[in-house]
Amino acid sequence: MQIAIFVYDRFTALDAIGPYEVLSRLPGASVVFTGQRTGPVMTDAGGLSVLAEASISEVPHPDIVVVPGGPGQATKPQLEDGQVHEWLRLVDQHTTVTASVCTGSLILAAAGLLTGRRATSHWLALERLADYGVQPVSERVVIDGTYITAAGVSAGIDMALALAGRIAGRETAEAIQLMMEYDPRPPYNAGSPRTAPADLVATMRLQSRHSAGSRAAR
Amino acid sequence: MQIAIFVYDRFTALDAIGPYEVLSRLPGASVVFTGQRTGPVMTDAGGLSVLAEASISEVPHPDIVVVPGGPGQATKPQLEDGQVHEWLRLVDQHTTVTASVCTGSLILAAAGLLTGRRATSHWLALERLADYGVQPVSERVVIDGTYITAAGVSAGIDMALALAGRIAGRETAEAIQLMMEYDPRPPYNAGSPRTAPADLVATMRLQSRHSAGSRAAR
Repeated sequence: MQIAIFVYDRFTALDAIGPYEVLSRLPGASVVFTGQRTGPVMTDAGGLSVLAEASISEVPHPDIVVVPGGPGQATKPQLEDGQVHEWLRLVDQHTTVTASVCTGSLILAAAGLLTGRRATSHWLALERLADYGVQPVSERVVIDGTYITAAGVSAGIDMALALAGRIAGRETAEAIQLMMEYDPRPPYNAGSPRTAPADLVATMRLQSRHSAGSRAAR
Repeated sequence: MQIAIFVYDRFTALDAIGPYEVLSRLPGASVVFTGQRTGPVMTDAGGLSVLAEASISEVPHPDIVVVPGGPGQATKPQLEDGQVHEWLRLVDQHTTVTASVCTGSLILAAAGLLTGRRATSHWLALERLADYGVQPVSERVVIDGTYITAAGVSAGIDMALALAGRIAGRETAEAIQLMMEYDPRPPYNAGSPRTAPADLVATMRLQSRHSAGSRAAR
């Protein structure tokens, strides 16, 4: 079972590594970090590069593909890149699961793979799915057919565990969860716009709109 | 504020990337992945290498050091390596926080940094802390003086958020949590030996002892 995790300049590290940590533990799984070119790929926050060990042309038939998200400046080229979209459409014909984390769903949507489907994304980007004819759903993990999309960043862990259960059964998924000691105890309760302080949510929405506006103006 | 994340052959990816994702978002933070040598470092499950951008000799005075864990075969050399222990003892003299995730606490303990202190580790490795004169504590995150240790793998996220709150205040930590959408919803309830099915816990304990026995016999 080949699992391709697509990486690109300034992707968000945990978007990719959360699912990697879960899915690489599936019996028979082989994970390949796949980029447009092989070599180091820098993550969004700096100081960390992961190696893309294969290029997209070398990975034509993965069983599962996972597309992480990133900040607007990182995802923008991926929303427009013909080669990446062609590859995603090609592999999607054969995958049993095509998955995304965070704004990775915008990339799948831009490639035309989610048209008419339900999907989720980072809470700040969720409504942008509608621009691509996708129905935005404010849930942690959304499954529609062979597509599974996760909310922002850390939601990729929950997505991958759900996927592990579907692929290998509940007992295997539970064994992976226990080995990862995934018994989360966040020290604060601000992980969702529903639970975070309202002024914090409002500030981030404003910053996000301002930043989107600046991008559009450039 | 320089944050050194120490990486070594077959470390567990999420042990390092969980804290990276949180701590790299702290205002003024600069993260450096630090290895015994610079260059690619393979993680334990295969298919993923991260780049160590600095060697330990190039990072003598980080403000924070984070030591991830790994499976027994990966941590064993780190429990015995004089150079790594010397570096850890050196940097520990100046760090405001010396942190570990998972079996990374065994490495800190083997370097003599946790003697007489309370600390935690992966649930399967917890009791081994006592071999180094450390008091094992079965909690998600344990703080003792300038030392902060986390339980297995995913606990590094909770540890780093607690640390972010201490360093930059509650509001900053909450903003980081919201940006990461860290509102965990595990699809199963098997993340701790207290909640996982008893037979799964027993099987893992047996496998772990067998594997430790094989290591001792070699």
